[in-house]
Amino acid sequence: MDALKEKIKREGEIISSSILKVDSFLNHQIDAGFIMEIGRELANRFCDEGITKVITIEASGIAPALSTAAVLGVPLVFAKKTKAATMDTEVYVEQVKSFTRGTVYDIKVAKKFLNKEDKVLIIDDFLAYGHAALGLVQIVKKSGADLAGVGIVIEKGFQSGGKLLRDQGIRVESLAVVESMEGNEIIFK
Amino acid sequence: MDALKEKIKREGEIISSSILKVDSFLNHQIDAGFIMEIGRELANRFCDEGITKVITIEASGIAPALSTAAVLGVPLVFAKKTKAATMDTEVYVEQVKSFTRGTVYDIKVAKKFLNKEDKVLIIDDFLAYGHAALGLVQIVKKSGADLAGVGIVIEKGFQSGGKLLRDQGIRVESLAVVESMEGNEIIFK
Repeated sequence: MDALKEKIKREGEIISSSILKVDSFLNHQIDAGFIMEIGRELANRFCDEGITKVITIEASGIAPALSTAAVLGVPLVFAKKTKAATMDTEVYVEQVKSFTRGTVYDIKVAKKFLNKEDKVLIIDDFLAYGHAALGLVQIVKKSGADLAGVGIVIEKGFQSGGKLLRDQGIRVESLAVVESMEGNEIIFK
Repeated sequence: MDALKEKIKREGEIISSSILKVDSFLNHQIDAGFIMEIGRELANRFCDEGITKVITIEASGIAPALSTAAVLGVPLVFAKKTKAATMDTEVYVEQVKSFTRGTVYDIKVAKKFLNKEDKVLIIDDFLAYGHAALGLVQIVKKSGADLAGVGIVIEKGFQSGGKLLRDQGIRVESLAVVESMEGNEIIFK
């Protein structure tokens, strides 16, 4: 998606050779109109799959997942990192390691929102080592639902998440794949 | 907003006389098409205010804030509850008490995303005691930006947040105001 690559080049900040900061349009401030375009593009790539549900993890995944779900005309479920007082006790739980924070946390999805009649599309803002996506894949498997694939806004192609998922036969569609960020320059695949 | 009240009546669960659970369309599973309608309605109520930015708190605020910002054609900034490795060091911080969790947490907004030229609309999914909204109001004040008002999906009218905000002269627009949940029945104002 050329508009996305241009935006990453223009607004992205290279924090280190492995960390890309895009907080001006995706992670902290969100360019709402642009996120709607991203949703149209992600929905378009999976529109023939008979998706019944989009799933993501709070918080940065919610915006692209919502815009995708709105175009597909299906509900979105976001996995929770913390347990609210109102959360169901019947939940699917997986452990996820955070690449940027260096911590391990649980993600939880209420069982009533995923079942074996569902065809699920996983959406996330970033794909790095794939821990978040793999956690969601496990939750989809546990629920008995069918996984249509994984839609990603920015994949860091030099980290292993994309390969791990594709090696499992999972379809991964990334709107921009960053091949390297060496020498303070962002190179796309 | 009648469609919202009907949805709350149909899908909402009364957990106690003070806690309403709407995780089937707003807090965990999100009805994407319906959230887009909610955004149109909230945007409509503030469309003459010259809004330049929508602000909310992760995670449940993001969906209605995004749909509102998309209709208004402005960016959305979501205050963070945890500090990512990539977050700016120059941030506005406020302490917020969580009604449902019984904990106190910091919310943070990078200074570069709010400034005195902005006219800001605060959006959140729930208004109970107003702690989250008041925290955002303080951040808007610190930034020197102008506050246009607060747009809420569901206000619990029997708790003090709405009064606290309105007593400060802040315009609060709530799409549904729950007057009471006694006797297992939801009564709207």
